[in-house]
Amino acid sequence: MTKTVLIGAGNLAFHFYKKLTNCNEVNLIQWYSRSVQKINFAKKQIEVTDQFSQIKSADLYLICVSDDAIGSICKKINTTEMVVHCAGGVSIDQLKGTPRKGVFYPLQTFSKDQDLSFDQLPFCIETTDPKDQILLSNIAKAMGGIPYKVDSKTRAQMHMIAVLINNFGNHLLYLGSKLLKEHDIPFEIFHPLIKETYQKALKSGPENTQTGPAIRDDQKTIEKHLGLLSDENIKKLYLNLTTSIQNNHE
Amino acid sequence: MTKTVLIGAGNLAFHFYKKLTNCNEVNLIQWYSRSVQKINFAKKQIEVTDQFSQIKSADLYLICVSDDAIGSICKKINTTEMVVHCAGGVSIDQLKGTPRKGVFYPLQTFSKDQDLSFDQLPFCIETTDPKDQILLSNIAKAMGGIPYKVDSKTRAQMHMIAVLINNFGNHLLYLGSKLLKEHDIPFEIFHPLIKETYQKALKSGPENTQTGPAIRDDQKTIEKHLGLLSDENIKKLYLNLTTSIQNNHE
Repeated sequence: MTKTVLIGAGNLAFHFYKKLTNCNEVNLIQWYSRSVQKINFAKKQIEVTDQFSQIKSADLYLICVSDDAIGSICKKINTTEMVVHCAGGVSIDQLKGTPRKGVFYPLQTFSKDQDLSFDQLPFCIETTDPKDQILLSNIAKAMGGIPYKVDSKTRAQMHMIAVLINNFGNHLLYLGSKLLKEHDIPFEIFHPLIKETYQKALKSGPENTQTGPAIRDDQKTIEKHLGLLSDENIKKLYLNLTTSIQNNHE
Repeated sequence: MTKTVLIGAGNLAFHFYKKLTNCNEVNLIQWYSRSVQKINFAKKQIEVTDQFSQIKSADLYLICVSDDAIGSICKKINTTEMVVHCAGGVSIDQLKGTPRKGVFYPLQTFSKDQDLSFDQLPFCIETTDPKDQILLSNIAKAMGGIPYKVDSKTRAQMHMIAVLINNFGNHLLYLGSKLLKEHDIPFEIFHPLIKETYQKALKSGPENTQTGPAIRDDQKTIEKHLGLLSDENIKKLYLNLTTSIQNNHE
């Protein structure tokens, strides 16, 4: 079992705490956050602290803090053991002043108040020492996930693409639900369409499941839809996405 | 049982043909398409024709053709029985020269080569005669769906919102998969993220599930992502969607 200290109290840290206290490969010995009140609830099960001077000696320091804080937290740990961050968009080089660096990035969206299954979850793993690649892969597997070896350059692309797919995909649903509300139409009517949209794209590939006025160049319907939109921002998005579909499916 | 003639050979007509030949409320007596070779496969089970002069007398004519053709098809039928179209974006008034008009619009995306469940599928129904509303609602229920009474104005909004959610949602997945291919990253790694994105938005509402650099105003990450994008079209979309998220979550 890898003696591990968890650092941070964001969404990801909470999910890791829950999972790692029940993971055969990991012995979670301590949880650090500068705001100890956020993690005090866990102190019956695990030692918690907001003092860096009290951080225990461990085999693995798992940093789950905001991107900007990773560098300074790493310097403070001051260890020759493994220091790992969990951010998609941050290079492994940002772990300054430590010899055994690693990245352990779960490709998923996390919310504090929602349960999440780690089953089949992809973990993008990078390490400076090849032995640590095996160690982190074993932890990913023990959590139920699937380890992938991914370097910092590729991971940065994946992080950007995750924004495109997750953040922007959610925003389209948000805009749709906002317009529905304006017309007193319950969002639930759209649930089957939303489910079918992504299930079909995953099954057949999104290059084969594009339908609608843009791809069949149905200018009449496009004009009709633009006429129904009073929000200039949504109108602009409608036009840009229509053009993008047409440019990509000529 | 409602004696029904099905008109058209697009995606929707194929799914209706399959479903209506096994529906207790409907007796499908004929299928018309101007391209009879498209529907010849069905002639062991049902009469097929490409001649309007041979269209049978029926209780219900179900028009599943392209939006532009609905008006002229309706005129040709020349009946006092019920004539119904299935288009989201077309007003009931487009059914010219017929006294009993109706709309029977399933809010879903259909592909010819993919099986689709009608279970819990929302049907937007509108009729000029209130009795026909009940008749079409019963057919929707017998198909496994859920009938909703929706007028032409509201249905036009729903059709536009369906484009926003389905067509544009699929296109974001397409752009993501295209970028992944360019970087030799298998699309499958993103499947859990895509599933979670949609499931979470349906469960908690997309207004509660927005995450990412746009909503937390993380300008550094936004700049980083824009720097990774060489495709000017995707760059523009990234910026517009980021601005839209920020304007909507102030």
